[in-house]
Amino acid sequence: MITPEEHAGRRARLLERAQAVGATGYVLFDPTYITYFTGFWFLSNERPIVYLQSAGGGDVIFVPEFEVERTRAESKFARVESYPEYPGREHPMLVLARVAADLGLRDTIAADNDGYPGILGYRGPALRAVTGASVPLLGDEIERMLVRKSAAEVELLRESGRWCAYAHRLLEQYTRVGSTEAEASLRAQQETTLAMLAAHGSRGLLGSGDGSKAGFRGQIGLRSSWAHAVAHNIEFHAGDVLVTETGAPVWGYQAELERAVIIGPPTDRMRWLFDHMLGSREAALAAIVPGASCADVDGAVMDYFARNDLQRYWRQHTGHGAGLRNHEAPFLDVGDPTPLEPGMVFTIEPGLYDPEVGGFRHSDTVVVTETGYDLLTDYPTDLESLTLPA
Amino acid sequence: MITPEEHAGRRARLLERAQAVGATGYVLFDPTYITYFTGFWFLSNERPIVYLQSAGGGDVIFVPEFEVERTRAESKFARVESYPEYPGREHPMLVLARVAADLGLRDTIAADNDGYPGILGYRGPALRAVTGASVPLLGDEIERMLVRKSAAEVELLRESGRWCAYAHRLLEQYTRVGSTEAEASLRAQQETTLAMLAAHGSRGLLGSGDGSKAGFRGQIGLRSSWAHAVAHNIEFHAGDVLVTETGAPVWGYQAELERAVIIGPPTDRMRWLFDHMLGSREAALAAIVPGASCADVDGAVMDYFARNDLQRYWRQHTGHGAGLRNHEAPFLDVGDPTPLEPGMVFTIEPGLYDPEVGGFRHSDTVVVTETGYDLLTDYPTDLESLTLPA
Repeated sequence: MITPEEHAGRRARLLERAQAVGATGYVLFDPTYITYFTGFWFLSNERPIVYLQSAGGGDVIFVPEFEVERTRAESKFARVESYPEYPGREHPMLVLARVAADLGLRDTIAADNDGYPGILGYRGPALRAVTGASVPLLGDEIERMLVRKSAAEVELLRESGRWCAYAHRLLEQYTRVGSTEAEASLRAQQETTLAMLAAHGSRGLLGSGDGSKAGFRGQIGLRSSWAHAVAHNIEFHAGDVLVTETGAPVWGYQAELERAVIIGPPTDRMRWLFDHMLGSREAALAAIVPGASCADVDGAVMDYFARNDLQRYWRQHTGHGAGLRNHEAPFLDVGDPTPLEPGMVFTIEPGLYDPEVGGFRHSDTVVVTETGYDLLTDYPTDLESLTLPA
Repeated sequence: MITPEEHAGRRARLLERAQAVGATGYVLFDPTYITYFTGFWFLSNERPIVYLQSAGGGDVIFVPEFEVERTRAESKFARVESYPEYPGREHPMLVLARVAADLGLRDTIAADNDGYPGILGYRGPALRAVTGASVPLLGDEIERMLVRKSAAEVELLRESGRWCAYAHRLLEQYTRVGSTEAEASLRAQQETTLAMLAAHGSRGLLGSGDGSKAGFRGQIGLRSSWAHAVAHNIEFHAGDVLVTETGAPVWGYQAELERAVIIGPPTDRMRWLFDHMLGSREAALAAIVPGASCADVDGAVMDYFARNDLQRYWRQHTGHGAGLRNHEAPFLDVGDPTPLEPGMVFTIEPGLYDPEVGGFRHSDTVVVTETGYDLLTDYPTDLESLTLPA
């Protein structure tokens, strides 16, 4: 897990950014950001949970009344403030304004967003409106901080990758002709979640409590040529091309492992598409070098497609960032000029999609290093290993 | 499921609202709203999926390129437009601006939000900025439409309530001393999801594919006195007070069923708290009468607490709306003056929380009728039924 010292360091960096824009402190409304900067876990809903820190370093976690006891028991915040309920007789944002003033936040207050986002029917005034302060937004700065993972974050992602592999082995085992998508998926994710809990103790390495995900998202047979489908509990048949997905959050950090899988002996056409998918994957990995940009990596894949006259099978860019969120910036996309930096974590998942045959995509998670990349998901990539008995 | 005619009716009402503010049409960015108005299901991520309708009635679904084939196969949209990727060489919002212009949207364009929300690292310009139009926001109007459920929506919620009861029976069966939260939860939700699929066919009544949820969210033993905890895979012990939760989306519609459950014979103190929870629940249900407001229902519960000197056990308001989202407005809260109207669906879940004993909360889902309410979750409420063997 991430140490309290690392969380404190993240907050110190954010406070620097807030002071650089002349703010007396900052306010965070986004639940993922609050977890990232404080390590605090909670169920997010229409009742705002807000974190505030002043330029002097004092801080407050602001929660609905019913979260106070749990917050005191499960976190180390020196100060917990609360409001009775949302919407309540007095809007929580008005209570928040008093808490902010008491903490010394005034005139200029940095924030990730100018108020709580309108989720699940929440409605409320802007932070600017209730405090009378100007509110410079730090969203872009925060996103940039999340992009470069620390050594501890990379280890959690690596551990997540190991459990993805565990889930994938089970998923393959339960993917049999006559069985269905839901049966294979539910068995694999249930067993993986229980194994994760057994290995890491009942206090829960999962953080989120969501457990492992494993399945196909409907990408079975010709539907696998749709780069994103939705689950339909489809029955498996001999000759099916499948695109899997697995996930296993470890203290919230989520690696991604996906594989193209075939039930029964592949046809020549399947083998041809599979091999070119592997070729495009190699092109992407080879492009992760010091000095390259996100666009360069995607460009290398596009070049591979062009060189081999495969453009009609292209559907998606090469990959996306991953961390506390299963998708995040930056993107391995010809339109993203962000330079690669050590500590950035990406999925590498170029795919070929043929409506007459199926979809062929592996997704692996890598961390950019000083000299290239390090693979966080270790799993067979070859067609023989990924051919299931018919 | 909701018929195409009902979806068309919803769109016609929204178009009226858009025209009432002088708009040449409207644009929807929120995934739940798109599902509500069109019946289209998709995985939402950093790649915008947008629905547009012009005052003349013509419409477009705007998706990333890789969703085009699936969208054509699984929906009835007359016109599907796309952009290559996000972020892409050209930002999707710039492509969207051309699509909007081509559809006749100009000058004044109503929308649920002025651009795509910044989820999963998405960044982009406002609709106003790319179209040069003024953008009156319809978010509040849309939320008001979602609040009153149709007869078809109520039937889906009732069916969801039936499956919640199914999941709850299994959850009770697997909640045994020596077993753990995760074991009971995973077994109950897996079996319920498979039973739902078997009953409703492999095409999937689930819509979302997410399946049933059943568990405790960490509300076990004294932790049940925390009105929201987080899962910890806690082992069950004799004498534990538990607060359950179950869910089972049916075409996305989600009823809620929760119960206070006790392992082994209850103490007198547990019985006293349980009985008062039932008393407060009766007070809430009795307050659902024509002419009452949301605040009146919560007020009736607060009065019950005050009359019986129970205020120190109060933690949360009486309930919240439910539909395509598991929480939504309006709220059964003293601060919500919304008048009750037939077709509104609420959870009824007043609870008593004693840090020295545990939490006592039932949650049921009801629909407001012309004369009172109709219960959508049918499950035992008495202590004897909810006492498990130790």
